[in-house]
Amino acid sequence: MAYKEHMLNIDLITVGKMKKGPLFELQEEYQKRIRWPLSLHEIESRYSDPVTMNDDENRKIVSRLSPGAYVIVLDERGQGLRSLDFADTLQKMQDNGAEQMQFIIGGSDGLNDTVRNEASFLLSFGQQTWPHQMARIMLLEQIYRAQQIMAGHPYHKE
Amino acid sequence: MAYKEHMLNIDLITVGKMKKGPLFELQEEYQKRIRWPLSLHEIESRYSDPVTMNDDENRKIVSRLSPGAYVIVLDERGQGLRSLDFADTLQKMQDNGAEQMQFIIGGSDGLNDTVRNEASFLLSFGQQTWPHQMARIMLLEQIYRAQQIMAGHPYHKE
Repeated sequence: MAYKEHMLNIDLITVGKMKKGPLFELQEEYQKRIRWPLSLHEIESRYSDPVTMNDDENRKIVSRLSPGAYVIVLDERGQGLRSLDFADTLQKMQDNGAEQMQFIIGGSDGLNDTVRNEASFLLSFGQQTWPHQMARIMLLEQIYRAQQIMAGHPYHKE
Repeated sequence: MAYKEHMLNIDLITVGKMKKGPLFELQEEYQKRIRWPLSLHEIESRYSDPVTMNDDENRKIVSRLSPGAYVIVLDERGQGLRSLDFADTLQKMQDNGAEQMQFIIGGSDGLNDTVRNEASFLLSFGQQTWPHQMARIMLLEQIYRAQQIMAGHPYHKE
């Protein structure tokens, strides 16, 4: 995917395949608008027992992580980040020639500590619990917003 | 709207008409799923100058407020609230026989202090800035989630 030198690659590691519908349409819309090379990984498990399934999902998430990547895990107990500061983080990573940023969003049963321990940063979208597929759209929107902030585009207003 | 005694009426006071599209579909979906009598007010201004328009929108929002209503204003500088605590707030209001709860979401230019001063509670969905129409969906989801929590439904997982 790194077709351009020093172009930041962004991975979205998520759980479950998103079905066609309004959230899927929003996902497609943001994927089109975001100019960073963006890969979406939808982890799936064949197990039906919830505990085994969750373990399997978490293991598969960890297996997707690249050595040296900056890993941001979405977690309601994580740290909040203003959109401007999020854009600043992306700007700095790009300026420093970072190659890969990986975002992880857990499934409906959440993530275990093995995944959380891999995080460079635990990011919170507030104290609320959000549906994991909605959180995916919220994250894409923040990445798109960061891009517009970095471009000096009036999409973002303070 | 108060067709049932002690039924909590919920008002959503928002800015701008939501156009057809994925967010509109999500809005319709949550409106269907929420069983509280829910009224959506979409404030519009005919002014084109941004400052005059914003003043007008804010004035129209205030004119929609009912005396005695519990007013929650969405504000990134507000207070976070876990979904369980949000459900608890709604439960208590219903138990106390409260008749009306009004939620306010500003437009892209935000709200002024006149509106903020009317708030019983300033609610934050994290430090991030969200598109105001996406914030509408996020709020509807939290209201729906509160309903499911109160019903003991497994939609919400801790």
